[in-house]
Amino acid sequence: MGTSSTILSDLGTEIIIPICAVIGIVFSLLQWYLVSKVKVSLEKPGADGKNGFTEALIEEEEGINDHTVVQKCAEIQTAISEGATSFLFTEYQYVGVFMVIFAGLIFVFLGSVEGFSTSSQVCTYDTTKMCKPALMTAVFSTVSFILGAVTSVISGFLGMKIATYANARTTLEARKGVGKAFIVAFRSGAVMGFLLAANGLLVLYITINLFKIYYGDDWEGLFESITGYGLGGSSMALFGRVGGGIYTKAADVGADLVGKVERNIPEDDPRNPAVIADNVGDNVGDIAGMGSDLFGSYAESSCAALVVASISSFGINHEFTAMMYPLLVSSVGILVCLITTLFATDFFEVKTVKQIEPALKNQLIISTVLMTIGIAFVSWIALPSSFTIFNFGTQKDVKNWQLFLCVGVGLWAGLIIGFVTEYYTSNAYSPVQDVADSCRTGAATNVIFGLALGYKSVIIPIFAIAISIFVSFTFAAMYGVAVAALGMLSTIATGLAIDAYGPISDNAGGIAEMAGMSHRIRERTDALDAAGNTTAAIGKGFAIGSAALVSLALFGAFVSRAEITTVDVLTPKVFIGLIVGAMLPYWFSAMTMKSVGKAALAMVEEVRRQFNTIPGLMEGTAKPDYATCVKISTDASIKEMVPPGCLVMLTPLIVGTFFGVETLSGVLAGSLVSGVQIAISASNTGGAWDNAKKYIEAGVSDHAKSLGPKGSDAHKAAVIGDTVGDPLKDTSGPSLNILIKLMAVESLVFAPFFATHGGLLFKIFE
Amino acid sequence: MGTSSTILSDLGTEIIIPICAVIGIVFSLLQWYLVSKVKVSLEKPGADGKNGFTEALIEEEEGINDHTVVQKCAEIQTAISEGATSFLFTEYQYVGVFMVIFAGLIFVFLGSVEGFSTSSQVCTYDTTKMCKPALMTAVFSTVSFILGAVTSVISGFLGMKIATYANARTTLEARKGVGKAFIVAFRSGAVMGFLLAANGLLVLYITINLFKIYYGDDWEGLFESITGYGLGGSSMALFGRVGGGIYTKAADVGADLVGKVERNIPEDDPRNPAVIADNVGDNVGDIAGMGSDLFGSYAESSCAALVVASISSFGINHEFTAMMYPLLVSSVGILVCLITTLFATDFFEVKTVKQIEPALKNQLIISTVLMTIGIAFVSWIALPSSFTIFNFGTQKDVKNWQLFLCVGVGLWAGLIIGFVTEYYTSNAYSPVQDVADSCRTGAATNVIFGLALGYKSVIIPIFAIAISIFVSFTFAAMYGVAVAALGMLSTIATGLAIDAYGPISDNAGGIAEMAGMSHRIRERTDALDAAGNTTAAIGKGFAIGSAALVSLALFGAFVSRAEITTVDVLTPKVFIGLIVGAMLPYWFSAMTMKSVGKAALAMVEEVRRQFNTIPGLMEGTAKPDYATCVKISTDASIKEMVPPGCLVMLTPLIVGTFFGVETLSGVLAGSLVSGVQIAISASNTGGAWDNAKKYIEAGVSDHAKSLGPKGSDAHKAAVIGDTVGDPLKDTSGPSLNILIKLMAVESLVFAPFFATHGGLLFKIFE
Repeated sequence: MGTSSTILSDLGTEIIIPICAVIGIVFSLLQWYLVSKVKVSLEKPGADGKNGFTEALIEEEEGINDHTVVQKCAEIQTAISEGATSFLFTEYQYVGVFMVIFAGLIFVFLGSVEGFSTSSQVCTYDTTKMCKPALMTAVFSTVSFILGAVTSVISGFLGMKIATYANARTTLEARKGVGKAFIVAFRSGAVMGFLLAANGLLVLYITINLFKIYYGDDWEGLFESITGYGLGGSSMALFGRVGGGIYTKAADVGADLVGKVERNIPEDDPRNPAVIADNVGDNVGDIAGMGSDLFGSYAESSCAALVVASISSFGINHEFTAMMYPLLVSSVGILVCLITTLFATDFFEVKTVKQIEPALKNQLIISTVLMTIGIAFVSWIALPSSFTIFNFGTQKDVKNWQLFLCVGVGLWAGLIIGFVTEYYTSNAYSPVQDVADSCRTGAATNVIFGLALGYKSVIIPIFAIAISIFVSFTFAAMYGVAVAALGMLSTIATGLAIDAYGPISDNAGGIAEMAGMSHRIRERTDALDAAGNTTAAIGKGFAIGSAALVSLALFGAFVSRAEITTVDVLTPKVFIGLIVGAMLPYWFSAMTMKSVGKAALAMVEEVRRQFNTIPGLMEGTAKPDYATCVKISTDASIKEMVPPGCLVMLTPLIVGTFFGVETLSGVLAGSLVSGVQIAISASNTGGAWDNAKKYIEAGVSDHAKSLGPKGSDAHKAAVIGDTVGDPLKDTSGPSLNILIKLMAVESLVFAPFFATHGGLLFKIFE
Repeated sequence: MGTSSTILSDLGTEIIIPICAVIGIVFSLLQWYLVSKVKVSLEKPGADGKNGFTEALIEEEEGINDHTVVQKCAEIQTAISEGATSFLFTEYQYVGVFMVIFAGLIFVFLGSVEGFSTSSQVCTYDTTKMCKPALMTAVFSTVSFILGAVTSVISGFLGMKIATYANARTTLEARKGVGKAFIVAFRSGAVMGFLLAANGLLVLYITINLFKIYYGDDWEGLFESITGYGLGGSSMALFGRVGGGIYTKAADVGADLVGKVERNIPEDDPRNPAVIADNVGDNVGDIAGMGSDLFGSYAESSCAALVVASISSFGINHEFTAMMYPLLVSSVGILVCLITTLFATDFFEVKTVKQIEPALKNQLIISTVLMTIGIAFVSWIALPSSFTIFNFGTQKDVKNWQLFLCVGVGLWAGLIIGFVTEYYTSNAYSPVQDVADSCRTGAATNVIFGLALGYKSVIIPIFAIAISIFVSFTFAAMYGVAVAALGMLSTIATGLAIDAYGPISDNAGGIAEMAGMSHRIRERTDALDAAGNTTAAIGKGFAIGSAALVSLALFGAFVSRAEITTVDVLTPKVFIGLIVGAMLPYWFSAMTMKSVGKAALAMVEEVRRQFNTIPGLMEGTAKPDYATCVKISTDASIKEMVPPGCLVMLTPLIVGTFFGVETLSGVLAGSLVSGVQIAISASNTGGAWDNAKKYIEAGVSDHAKSLGPKGSDAHKAAVIGDTVGDPLKDTSGPSLNILIKLMAVESLVFAPFFATHGGLLFKIFE
């Protein structure tokens, strides 16, 4: 059965994958345990009559009662956690309804391909064999869709839980020193990273093995139905990103417009009624949203690789180990990330503020270097030295070292994108400093320079993506592109860890401010947060880069499954798809940005109302009504995520059904090449404005001092840029990843239907 | 020779085209004569001892000596005219150097295709015949390139001359009434529109006839070499748009940032040192730039249609009248526009402010309706009832009514784009009012809402373009797309007339302000200008829409000439071209926006310096140093137009030479589908911000009053949006038209070279 051609036996594969996944989960729990040792409760005093932590306090709070501070932190944490939980539950209710309806749609559309017939049929690619009936593929696709959706929801939810669990702990540890706080925030990020990566892998692995019991030798049907897993993951990510993105930015923009601009009170001031909503938003948007986004990318690239492999020599010869190559790469990725994490938590120690950013950057470099070795190893033991890959109707010969290069080029392209993103968004380099400098002449020049920076920042990432595509496409067609995407995502655990670290530090700073902790604590959390801003931008860069590759791989898989062999731009059907597809990201961004704007206006009205009607609020003697602001954000995001959600989910269905697979191919290609540019430029522009503002505030260099201090005209101009950037970098930009991936995976799942029944409109006219 | 198959004889065609062109030129000169009857000089008093105009004055200036006003107007006009002339001459010097170098390149590249051989060769498409040597095609392409470039330069220059000739006259006529002023501004616009349309047609016609003397029966070679005409026109347009765009916005933004924001003096205040530069900018950017842009589109779409027709049945059977169909459409267009103009100047009279916008809008509707009849007539008399069109290696049967539909769909798509643009940029409708409303919460929400509006405004235009492409592509392949573009441009004379009207009115207002004329005059010119803002946006919509169609037609012609029959997205070479091509508009926009930002900062420094160092400037007792500001704008635009110019001109050469025609096809398709979106959204966003500001300033409705007046916080926020929009709508947005067209036409001209010697990099690796 071809097992002889790989060094690793099928049994070995069956064992290694779940073991790596379990190691990841155990490691994640261990990190959680270490974080949980920081106590935020006063109920259990230490055995010696003191609180567990006070004995370790390096510095003391000036004149602030320690007990009050801890209690306040605990209260705020509870408020944030409850707000986030309540929002996610509300969101999941709506999403649940969508899930049921869409699961029904999948069943009906796919079942109708062969008219709901229950008899076996000749396989599509290997016509000498019989495959399972299309009806059963419809059933299993529906099941895997639900599994993917549930896994995504769990990933996002757990991430949020961990983040809200960690934020107050980070604040409290900041009293002991910046290094201690860093470790807590970083470990919490790692909990999420490893849990998500391991969980995604394990569920996929179990699903494949369970489905195999039914499908047996029909791998074509088996891996076709597995694509539902990617669709499920990605459709949840859509709601997570869009809903969460609107939530967080409505609150953030609303809070800033009244608080910072009108009332001149600092960020995260407890007097600001929208402050809890803002902090909740960080968790539901940046944590839960990002988590399900990257989980979606991971699931989709695995599915795309598997479906292409199933009709290549791996699938035809039933070489199980080689088939599982994508999962093996991810398994090794977990081990590599585990070692990488130890570099930040155990092998080296962060002691000063200056060490934070290098420590995080080293994570990227270490994981990439180690993973390169890991990929080489997996390619050596799990692949035959030569095999064939399906390439739009033909088979293409591939060597194992070529596939190693495909994965490797994706991995390193990710690193390059990460560093370019850092260069354009960190205030240590000239691009952001130029933007800060342009604040001298006001907000208008700041916006002009910021937009120009974002546009410019797409150049190198696009070349990196183009080179990855060229190499992987040339070596191994769409399979190569899919594994390149997997390569970029193979260090996802580390990527997510440093990414989640950002919002946790951000929240920690917010809690310190709200709990009335000393200025020195706030300075420490600000330093953590500044590094977090850059890593968040890097994380977004990864998310977009991988989305581009994943989307292309899915597109290729769709084209294969729809049985078209060319997508010729020189046909009217394809070209109109291309130009309309390139328009969709604009339509989508218009919706999401307007939604944030509208919700923020509502928030502004409410915050103003509270300041005007609650006596003593500005003086700090009365408490604001946080709950109303939380409700405004919740309601707005639930309501506003529907239209963009419909745009993304319905476009492939409408285009495929009425215009057919050629036009749909054009739409997918168009939205991919156009969307990736807007996504990169939007998130970098926003990141740059944010850090340009921080640059002026921090006033570290002479140049920065000449622009500041807080409250100067240049700083006010910088705040305007920052506010404009908020929806760009946290709502519309990242949501575009989902747009391009989701339309592609949805097309892939529905491909048999479109190929059979699609193109109604042209059929009428012909 | 096939002449019997068309109703119109070849002789008739040879006569009709030049006659229509001459009628256009005569009509244009007549309009000029009518404008020139308004005197701005005091040297020749009327025969009755009074000045020619005072007797007609309806209202008198309050306490302002009339002679002084007229003299001031004359002075200012001279300053603007001299500034514009001097800038254009400087620009043309640099452009001249470029032209000589590039002409050399064309000769060398095309000459090398057959190794500079002087012997005849077998024709590419009709292999039974002998065609002229490639070397001669190189020579004639070079000549037609120079002719196109010179015609473009003349068009832009004459437009600027007329505009600067008309602006003070419009101001003076505004004293007599708004209707009189409207007529002057409109007639001046018509001078430019007709001169440009007729001139472009005539030069092309003469060139074809002269080249035919050498080429004789070799129409393939004849019309291949004619493509140089389009390249010449478009490359001049690049420098006109980019250089002029940077000039005008550096001055505008610089003047506004210090004048309006810091010093709180009104727009066009004579105390502002940048005010002359600002007014010069309107003429070199909006007039000369727009003129050469649309001339380029016209020349390119004609060339694209001709080159495809030459290898279709028209060319193969030597049906001259049918070949000249594109030129006949343009000829009838001139007559139609002539009648349309009379509706604004003679049949109806504009008497009140409210009648201005409908009068301009009616121009669009009337010309479109009349032109539909005109196209039907031309299609009936100039086309055989059935013929074949070259379609990427095959011939496609086309009926004459199908071609009528192709032209018609382009024409009407233009009207739809015009109206959608109006809806999104005029402050009479809710989109702009919503943007104005968002100024309540500051500049940040204004920018967010404005960007969202721009994104949203692409939806319908893209569908209109997509439908035009689908219809014309399906009926008549790339020939259909080319004539659809010609359809959109067939009413170019009217389009340019209402477009040029805008900057003329803008300048008229500036002159009124600078000459110290009464508030009532300024109100009238403001009303003229507000309508002009919308027509300018409509004009940009036309320019972009036609650019998209032209670019696709050129792309198709390139593909035909490069002898590739499919551009398959599912090949790595094409796909990387697609994604990199989609990135180019961002790179280009980053350059142009940053250039405007940098030049504006330099302008700000200079204006500030003058306010700080020239005593009595703010009080109006001392004169500012206008010349230095003019010099800053000139130097900046000349210097800054080089990098974006190189990007556009070198990309096709580099990609074609090193990566070959497939990748270049991808680049062209990618930049087209991505660039058109950014161009539309940028120009509409900018237009909307401008009119949102005007909406608040005018305070016509209760809603507008609640946001104003001038100087309120909401108004300040609106000014910031307006300033951000300036480079978007007048520099980076419109320049993208040129990017997508120019890369396509350049590829077309160099296609034989790329097809023979291109793709070096892949050849090395293969």
